[in-house]
Amino acid sequence: MTSEVRQNKATKEWVIYAPARRKRPRDFREHDAERKSLPPHDKECPFCPGNESMLPRIIMEFPAPERNTWGTRVVPNKYPALTPGEDIRRYNQGIYLTMPGYGRHEVIIESPRHDQDIAQMSPEEVGVIIETYHKRYVDLMHEHGNMMAIIFRNHGSRAGTSLIHPHSQLVVTSMVPRYIRWREEEAQRYFDEWGRCVFCDILTFEIEDRRRVILENDSFVAFIPFAAEVPFEIWIMPKEHRADFGNISDAEKTDLAPALRFCLARLRGKLADPDYNYVINTSARYRADEPQLHWYLQILPRLTTRAGFEIGSGININPSLPERDADFLTET
Amino acid sequence: MTSEVRQNKATKEWVIYAPARRKRPRDFREHDAERKSLPPHDKECPFCPGNESMLPRIIMEFPAPERNTWGTRVVPNKYPALTPGEDIRRYNQGIYLTMPGYGRHEVIIESPRHDQDIAQMSPEEVGVIIETYHKRYVDLMHEHGNMMAIIFRNHGSRAGTSLIHPHSQLVVTSMVPRYIRWREEEAQRYFDEWGRCVFCDILTFEIEDRRRVILENDSFVAFIPFAAEVPFEIWIMPKEHRADFGNISDAEKTDLAPALRFCLARLRGKLADPDYNYVINTSARYRADEPQLHWYLQILPRLTTRAGFEIGSGININPSLPERDADFLTET
Repeated sequence: MTSEVRQNKATKEWVIYAPARRKRPRDFREHDAERKSLPPHDKECPFCPGNESMLPRIIMEFPAPERNTWGTRVVPNKYPALTPGEDIRRYNQGIYLTMPGYGRHEVIIESPRHDQDIAQMSPEEVGVIIETYHKRYVDLMHEHGNMMAIIFRNHGSRAGTSLIHPHSQLVVTSMVPRYIRWREEEAQRYFDEWGRCVFCDILTFEIEDRRRVILENDSFVAFIPFAAEVPFEIWIMPKEHRADFGNISDAEKTDLAPALRFCLARLRGKLADPDYNYVINTSARYRADEPQLHWYLQILPRLTTRAGFEIGSGININPSLPERDADFLTET
Repeated sequence: MTSEVRQNKATKEWVIYAPARRKRPRDFREHDAERKSLPPHDKECPFCPGNESMLPRIIMEFPAPERNTWGTRVVPNKYPALTPGEDIRRYNQGIYLTMPGYGRHEVIIESPRHDQDIAQMSPEEVGVIIETYHKRYVDLMHEHGNMMAIIFRNHGSRAGTSLIHPHSQLVVTSMVPRYIRWREEEAQRYFDEWGRCVFCDILTFEIEDRRRVILENDSFVAFIPFAAEVPFEIWIMPKEHRADFGNISDAEKTDLAPALRFCLARLRGKLADPDYNYVINTSARYRADEPQLHWYLQILPRLTTRAGFEIGSGININPSLPERDADFLTET
């Protein structure tokens, strides 16, 4: 039972697979008691219909499919990490570099229903969420000073959520952080060597290999990456090479909804509704057309705890092998 | 109440300080109920005296100061992430890179006492722990194939600990991960520009500025970094420039013990014994003499949760300003 160390081909990060620390897949099952029996409406919840006075304002909304109500709403985050402003200049403070907290921090309320998670929605309802992500992303990327947008979802308290009503978030920044640059640089290096997008190569290999594939449809493949950082990590990747989520096609939007819903429903069903984060990894604005970048949606269940070794080395320890995780999620 | 964005001068990472998401320092107080009233000895605990049959073996031990017993013990981790072996070759698996889980994973039992944490020990007792770190680090760095050692401590369940008896861990790897290389590269770049170690420059500035300093003694300065990733992060940094923890002097060992004890006692006293990780950031073996690297001990309390934005961007959101954290920790 020695362990194995794998490299993430896209970022060159190492992950340790440690069977001695392994749990059986079922041992990962856990339940956030708070989520067990939610009411469809909560009169204290700022995201529930009728409580609009608790919201700062409504930026936009999209209609629900086949019902005479709103489906999604975009609102400012009431406790924003970043806020719009005129000043995006950086300056020195002693020997250090600093700048005002310029940016956006918005919430996408995913449904009027307090109790309905993506895993339980119809594909059409999930489609409205994707549409909302896309519209808001494109709008904000047209504004001067916005360099990058992170669209993400926190599900459950271990994933950092504070409000239970289903919602996603969008944060726009004026800087491109080192972490994103690192992914871009490695992809650039691969492209310079091989003349191909590393993510396209990963996709081709995974579709052929099949051992880690969770789902494939016309536009997307969902798979556990070879060097998954955590148990049951899933990447949902478009087959068509595009650096920028903003360039997603209509057909892709239609295909992403059932793929996302399927993956989240499998996690929910097989692992008893685990806490998770997902994030859309996309290019910085001015790299939208680059041949070496490829956007994808990354789901990271929160079943393990990052501890001192991970913090100090940047190497994750994953007690579960990707092939086994894929088997467990796909078996019926 | 707009936020501020600061850059870590050493790594170029950005951190967002978001006062709108702020708690008052006292709101961070929390308590792991399990730790409230521990017995001095637990007959089920593999690290307690008399239970040696539950340990794989004892690698080394150091005597306790002024008592006729052992003070610290080094034992193999019973569920190791990495194990010693002959084979450290890397090979291709399809398009991916992989290798056997070669390395070491050891536990440093810090005291025979089940209930005595570093914050409550005498400086002499903490000194034995530092001595143990150093001895084991030097021994392992002399073995062929060991490229890097991470010494760390997980305190509390949110920090990823599973056994409550006070202990640290040491993991040795045969690879230098991207995350460490990134810190080295940025330090190299700074050195090439300025001809000085960036950490030495930070140290000089912090000693002069004083607003973030928690403690200073002959050999060390403990301070909240200007771009602290999390509330109450503390760096304990040697004044003397040394890349490698392995080259710590006897005088430094004597001075590190009370500095570490003081910082942990302040966290414990002021924040009601919060969960935390600490890690010794040091150079890879073959960079031990480089002029641009500087080892330090980094303490990271686990008072906030990393969520989707942090995961997707690598940018931390810290609700608390370093200067305020330093004031809170130092006021008597």
